[in-house]
Amino acid sequence: METERDRALDESLELIMDLLSEKKYVQAREELLEFNAVDIAELLEEILDELGLEKVIVLYRILPKDLSVDVFSYLSVDTQVDIITGITDKEMHFIMDELPFDDMIDVLEELPANVVDKILARATKEERKQINAFLNYPENSAGSLMTPDYISLRRDMTVAEALASIRTVALDSETIYTCYVKDAGRKLLGVVSLRSLVVAKEDQLVEDLMTEDFVSIGVTDDQEVASEQFKRYGFLAIPVVDKEDRLVGIITVDDILDVIEEETEEDFQKMAGVMTDDSTREYLDTGVFRHVWSRLPWLFVLMLSYVVTGSIIAGFQDMLSSVICLVTYMPMLMGTGGNSGSQAATLVIRGLATGDIELSDALRVLWKELRVSTIIGLALCLINFARIYFLDSNGLLVALTVSVSMLAVVVVAKCIGGMLPMLAKLLKIDPALMASPFISSLTDLVSTVTYFAMASLILGI
Amino acid sequence: METERDRALDESLELIMDLLSEKKYVQAREELLEFNAVDIAELLEEILDELGLEKVIVLYRILPKDLSVDVFSYLSVDTQVDIITGITDKEMHFIMDELPFDDMIDVLEELPANVVDKILARATKEERKQINAFLNYPENSAGSLMTPDYISLRRDMTVAEALASIRTVALDSETIYTCYVKDAGRKLLGVVSLRSLVVAKEDQLVEDLMTEDFVSIGVTDDQEVASEQFKRYGFLAIPVVDKEDRLVGIITVDDILDVIEEETEEDFQKMAGVMTDDSTREYLDTGVFRHVWSRLPWLFVLMLSYVVTGSIIAGFQDMLSSVICLVTYMPMLMGTGGNSGSQAATLVIRGLATGDIELSDALRVLWKELRVSTIIGLALCLINFARIYFLDSNGLLVALTVSVSMLAVVVVAKCIGGMLPMLAKLLKIDPALMASPFISSLTDLVSTVTYFAMASLILGI
Repeated sequence: METERDRALDESLELIMDLLSEKKYVQAREELLEFNAVDIAELLEEILDELGLEKVIVLYRILPKDLSVDVFSYLSVDTQVDIITGITDKEMHFIMDELPFDDMIDVLEELPANVVDKILARATKEERKQINAFLNYPENSAGSLMTPDYISLRRDMTVAEALASIRTVALDSETIYTCYVKDAGRKLLGVVSLRSLVVAKEDQLVEDLMTEDFVSIGVTDDQEVASEQFKRYGFLAIPVVDKEDRLVGIITVDDILDVIEEETEEDFQKMAGVMTDDSTREYLDTGVFRHVWSRLPWLFVLMLSYVVTGSIIAGFQDMLSSVICLVTYMPMLMGTGGNSGSQAATLVIRGLATGDIELSDALRVLWKELRVSTIIGLALCLINFARIYFLDSNGLLVALTVSVSMLAVVVVAKCIGGMLPMLAKLLKIDPALMASPFISSLTDLVSTVTYFAMASLILGI
Repeated sequence: METERDRALDESLELIMDLLSEKKYVQAREELLEFNAVDIAELLEEILDELGLEKVIVLYRILPKDLSVDVFSYLSVDTQVDIITGITDKEMHFIMDELPFDDMIDVLEELPANVVDKILARATKEERKQINAFLNYPENSAGSLMTPDYISLRRDMTVAEALASIRTVALDSETIYTCYVKDAGRKLLGVVSLRSLVVAKEDQLVEDLMTEDFVSIGVTDDQEVASEQFKRYGFLAIPVVDKEDRLVGIITVDDILDVIEEETEEDFQKMAGVMTDDSTREYLDTGVFRHVWSRLPWLFVLMLSYVVTGSIIAGFQDMLSSVICLVTYMPMLMGTGGNSGSQAATLVIRGLATGDIELSDALRVLWKELRVSTIIGLALCLINFARIYFLDSNGLLVALTVSVSMLAVVVVAKCIGGMLPMLAKLLKIDPALMASPFISSLTDLVSTVTYFAMASLILGI
């Protein structure tokens, strides 16, 4: 939805691009500085698309130093890498030093090895060790999302001491609103919010304020586990621990918003039969061949199922030529079967994804789909019987064949649609793959067999 | 994904249910108190499903008072209403008094009128006015999400004064991490974070620390606008203002996580052709007739498109009976057309939803789909020609008809799939409705026409 801010951004974008084309860089900079870091980053991305990297780097270089790091952290990784490789080493080191740790790791992961070496060469041995540990966490793991810049407190600190300690490191911490209490062995003992510290008396002890019943996640847990916990508990940050329960980092809610969006996109794409290695890539920025590559394989695999459907039809050619009007109703039966199955599949896939449905609910799902599909099937059966018998005048037997097939197809399609995602989950395949294209290809096959079986039975051919 | 905590919850749930069946309420309570409020709420919901409301109310009543309100705020609205109507007035008033304002409004919206009257009767005139204002914000508006319990500061306060003021109201505020500076006319002047207050010197002035370039949203803006801003800027809270720029409330990030989940569910359901008035209702908790009602209308409407497809086929009956093997390839063409169209439609729908694609990109989308579909279409065209000519031995002309139709169908389906969501957006219809069921019903029609046109052309019949 377009907001006033979007319109203001669009207007300024045009003005800035005009100024850049006329090489009026200082004026362009002034215009840019009307906005905050997030908006400036967005404007730079648009300018990159329209005018190319060179103009962006000129503009980026004349931003105030501190703001430039902030802006950098909001750019897409592709643009970050472009800028890093387009500026001087000195400028690069300034950015990398000032960037929040988790953002720095994200950039390092994408930079060419020689640039990474250059950056690591300047770090202390201790820093290098930590950076390498973070670079090695598997993609999409909690470890790859977390930052080590959290606030540590000791349990025997008073509130006054804790607040003093927070003040000294506040600027370098990802968040100061949740603080972590560790023992000498770095084991996480408790969590205390800044809120309770601010409210408490100055001489109270941290250990009396901290919650020991905190929720943490493992460093190798999938990022989805992290986002589930955030949704469930409404956290601002979650601690990440290693196998020995030692605190290694924290994940903050702003990073989780990005993860949720990424996971949602992934689910949508899987459910549409689009395979991609990078769900954050934008549609228009993705090349034609990459689009082909992400779509062709599924189309091809699903086409194979139609080879089977086709050969079943071929087996019934004689029957079809003797009652050719049966062909007229094939698309309707297949289409309605596919749509019915997709509805059930989508609801069950989402239920599994959000945890509302578990594997142990299989029988309840089946029972529900059976009842729902019988009612829907009967309704569509009656409507079609009336239409075919009275309007199409194709005779009682054809009307009966089509309408009874409709009932059977809807019931079978909905039960398949409900069960297949659960079967996928049982086999540890992603249930999202069982959505529309897959289900409708399968139900097309089932619809064809059902239809011809009914026709043989009722028409006696 | 199941975590250790889930397993611990499952084990305790069984133990608690056994204890409840044996009427060992005190022991059940002890077991329950091992968990935090979110988990207890979840356990109560499960107990409600298994053992019914009565046991839940007994258990709920013997929880410690303060915890009971916390637990209440995490229950589903249905369960909240059940509990409110099952306890005494005194207990009810305690809960309503202690509940955060936004949660109280959510419960009030669902309670029967006589219970609402009973609650409002105890409120002061000022409170009643505010409650009524909140009850009147349209569903899914920013106003319906916000809470008036935020921290207000004056611009001429010192940091010490501000912190003292925060301390006095901290317990009743939704968040203390973002504070709001208003003038005498309640107009929002700036936003200041607790972080900057904690770091600043005691005698600094609030006005020197506050950001005046804050982002706010309007009270009647859709909740989607709010979630967009949260994703974009990584906020912890956002101020909500009325038409005169007066601060009326704030929305916090934990509530936005719920909104994002709700909006995602809504999109998934729309894209699967399921209509529902309440996307937060869980699959298993939804009654059979409600399921029927949410699915039957779309199935029926889409079925109508197949009446057209069917009548086109009827017009070509003679041609089909003379070359009956053409029928064999109909499902493959229709299915592949539907799948191709769905892929394009889903990508464009998501692009429109996330703002990556705008209406002005229509020609770029069309151009991209044209190129992508031509490559995919050519690949599938060649494969099918080879298969039909060499394996099925149905002759050169049939092979040519099917394979050329395949190319045409893929190209047309992908262009329709790419364009229809954009047309919907232009007409202010939700693009999500243009997903799989709709697109595949339409492409089935297009595939049929294309196929028969090719057949007439190539086979000369």
